[in-house]
Amino acid sequence: MNFPSRLIENAVNEFAKLPGVGRKTALRFVLHLLKQNDKDVANFSETFLKLKQELKYCKSCHNISDSELCDICSSHKRDHSLVCVVEDIRDVMAIENTGQYNGVYHILGGIISPMDGIGPSDLNIESLVEKVKNGEIKEVVMALSTTMEGDTTNFYIYKKLKEFNIMISTIARGVSIGDELEFADEVTLGRSIINRTLYEKGLSSK
Amino acid sequence: MNFPSRLIENAVNEFAKLPGVGRKTALRFVLHLLKQNDKDVANFSETFLKLKQELKYCKSCHNISDSELCDICSSHKRDHSLVCVVEDIRDVMAIENTGQYNGVYHILGGIISPMDGIGPSDLNIESLVEKVKNGEIKEVVMALSTTMEGDTTNFYIYKKLKEFNIMISTIARGVSIGDELEFADEVTLGRSIINRTLYEKGLSSK
Repeated sequence: MNFPSRLIENAVNEFAKLPGVGRKTALRFVLHLLKQNDKDVANFSETFLKLKQELKYCKSCHNISDSELCDICSSHKRDHSLVCVVEDIRDVMAIENTGQYNGVYHILGGIISPMDGIGPSDLNIESLVEKVKNGEIKEVVMALSTTMEGDTTNFYIYKKLKEFNIMISTIARGVSIGDELEFADEVTLGRSIINRTLYEKGLSSK
Repeated sequence: MNFPSRLIENAVNEFAKLPGVGRKTALRFVLHLLKQNDKDVANFSETFLKLKQELKYCKSCHNISDSELCDICSSHKRDHSLVCVVEDIRDVMAIENTGQYNGVYHILGGIISPMDGIGPSDLNIESLVEKVKNGEIKEVVMALSTTMEGDTTNFYIYKKLKEFNIMISTIARGVSIGDELEFADEVTLGRSIINRTLYEKGLSSK
């Protein structure tokens, strides 16, 4: 694409760095911005600068937070002996939305992915081991994606934690609620048969 | 969505103002930005501020430009008596890409759309009439979308220009090259039959 202006080209290139945004979409964003008034555009660009400069991470769970300790970690209503290990804040938001979880979280900030140059030392794993070592925790729930990278990270953390006297569990995998059995892939269906729930247990649990 | 931080929420809201970006996509953008280093994020936000502050519009055709007169308007190789009327710079870029047009442009900056509160006075129509009045122009080619709004704008400009002694044309509408006839919609196919090209003329024209 040949742009009539260097400024437009720079702006398009910046937008095109965002995930899933091509140069055509980026140009659409730029033209939209140009139609806004000066104040709105100033607001737009300052928000991201401020975000990066002022954002804090919770010192306990590494969640994004406005204060030193996030709302979940500082709440007395939560079970601090139950820790759910997730990849990023989107997973926290998804689990919080269910209203079914009352423990705290530990955000890894990514998963082990040698292809992208992300090793265990780039993630918040040491602080999790430290927390477990201090005896604060009774159970760790692994809630990572079932991809090659997720399974690797799961296994790595499991190996680090198995020497301690705690329970380690993983979220249930199975056929989604509302899904037709015939369309479920064989791995998911296979897992949901192996990890079937006994009726009494199923009825008594939430 | 409940966000763990006000800063995140603000950033998501800003991104979600962009056309076609929902709050989930906006959050993905924000998390992507958070993974970048400080300098990249500063660059990202400064680009848009600079864009809005420094961008100039060509005083002749209203195209986006780094200087007073855009590259096309200041070129001696272009036919300045042939003017193509388009909606915005994306159309200029699309026509320039074909390599088939040697005239100059006139960018309206939108089309007449009462639903969005855009009337003729919000567009660069007066300056087009002025140019035609000055006798600089021999032919005006209308290249607007064939929507209700595009047709209205076409008709409005036609009425404004018909008193002057110039040619007014519109780009050809017809079945796209490579399209199967049976799948063409009836209006397009109808138009392509009415405005059929004579063979001799077709062979002699580019």
